[in-house]
Amino acid sequence: MKAAASLEELIESLRCLPGVGPRSAQRMAYHLLQRDHAGAQRLAHSLAYALEHIRHCEKCNNFTEEVVCELCRSQRRDATLLCVVEMPADLLMMEQAHCYKGMYFVLMGRLSPLDGIGPREIHLDRLLKRAQDGLVREVVLATNFTVEGEATAHYIGELLHDKGMKVTRIARGLPVGGELEHVDSGTLAQAVIERREI
Amino acid sequence: MKAAASLEELIESLRCLPGVGPRSAQRMAYHLLQRDHAGAQRLAHSLAYALEHIRHCEKCNNFTEEVVCELCRSQRRDATLLCVVEMPADLLMMEQAHCYKGMYFVLMGRLSPLDGIGPREIHLDRLLKRAQDGLVREVVLATNFTVEGEATAHYIGELLHDKGMKVTRIARGLPVGGELEHVDSGTLAQAVIERREI
Repeated sequence: MKAAASLEELIESLRCLPGVGPRSAQRMAYHLLQRDHAGAQRLAHSLAYALEHIRHCEKCNNFTEEVVCELCRSQRRDATLLCVVEMPADLLMMEQAHCYKGMYFVLMGRLSPLDGIGPREIHLDRLLKRAQDGLVREVVLATNFTVEGEATAHYIGELLHDKGMKVTRIARGLPVGGELEHVDSGTLAQAVIERREI
Repeated sequence: MKAAASLEELIESLRCLPGVGPRSAQRMAYHLLQRDHAGAQRLAHSLAYALEHIRHCEKCNNFTEEVVCELCRSQRRDATLLCVVEMPADLLMMEQAHCYKGMYFVLMGRLSPLDGIGPREIHLDRLLKRAQDGLVREVVLATNFTVEGEATAHYIGELLHDKGMKVTRIARGLPVGGELEHVDSGTLAQAVIERREI
């Protein structure tokens, strides 16, 4: 006796979500079908819509629905500063700290050779091009202070030094091993102020 | 600076999944958009398809794509036995234990007054009707041995006794507080064999 094929398929496809194993997937499927048709409907729709409309900004690589995102188009940002972060959530944290008015580049990851994530996967070719647009005078590295984030910052630092760029690193005001996403705005602001050249 | 509207909407709608808070939802959305477009596409589709096609069997209340499910239509099952389980996963466990050849009724839950789940929500009116089809001679209660599962079994037992039905409970061979889903087939089979009238 097997479950309905479309139920099996739903359970299986829920497993593409990070951290969801067979049992969670089953529980999620039952929950959606039994108790939250409206939520499931909304999820199916927003997923399809996002897949169709969300792309990467041509300048900063962040998620956006436009070719160039709102922040990159803004005239009120300082185009001489380019801050490199790992994820969109880190960019949001930076903005919430109100300590930085320059531009961004979002790597969408960090160097992680063991997971097969190398320079190409975090778009360092595009970052290099972006940093050499003639306006950027300083690249602020704001990757996490984890082992992988530090390695990524070091790698990017070397790359940009070779091109004669000024590169700074936000200060190690964050606890060692800490992630930008989990820090309070004050600490993050302090770390930006105390950034040092590398 | 806000994230793209459709990304916000995706993150928000992922939160309808049980056990998914704001941070997990964000991580899931990034993962889907960044690393698993194919999986996301499949999930959106299977979700929409399941919502459209999956219904409850008119006889056993289990999920199915048909009016009456395959198991309920089968001629090889013992129509004099009706086993009551909480969830579809419990039915699958029973089948995998190869100890029972009767019919089923799936409550799709358990009595849980604090969560607002009463007799109506677990379809006891339909169970009562199903049990009195003239063929069923014994109702086997196989709800979990949790507090709520036991209360549900007790409540259903009283209900069916009033109608003069024979009601049995699978044996407490399962560890106290245990759930059917997590038990091995041997223990479950033993519990069915040792079921006692209540």
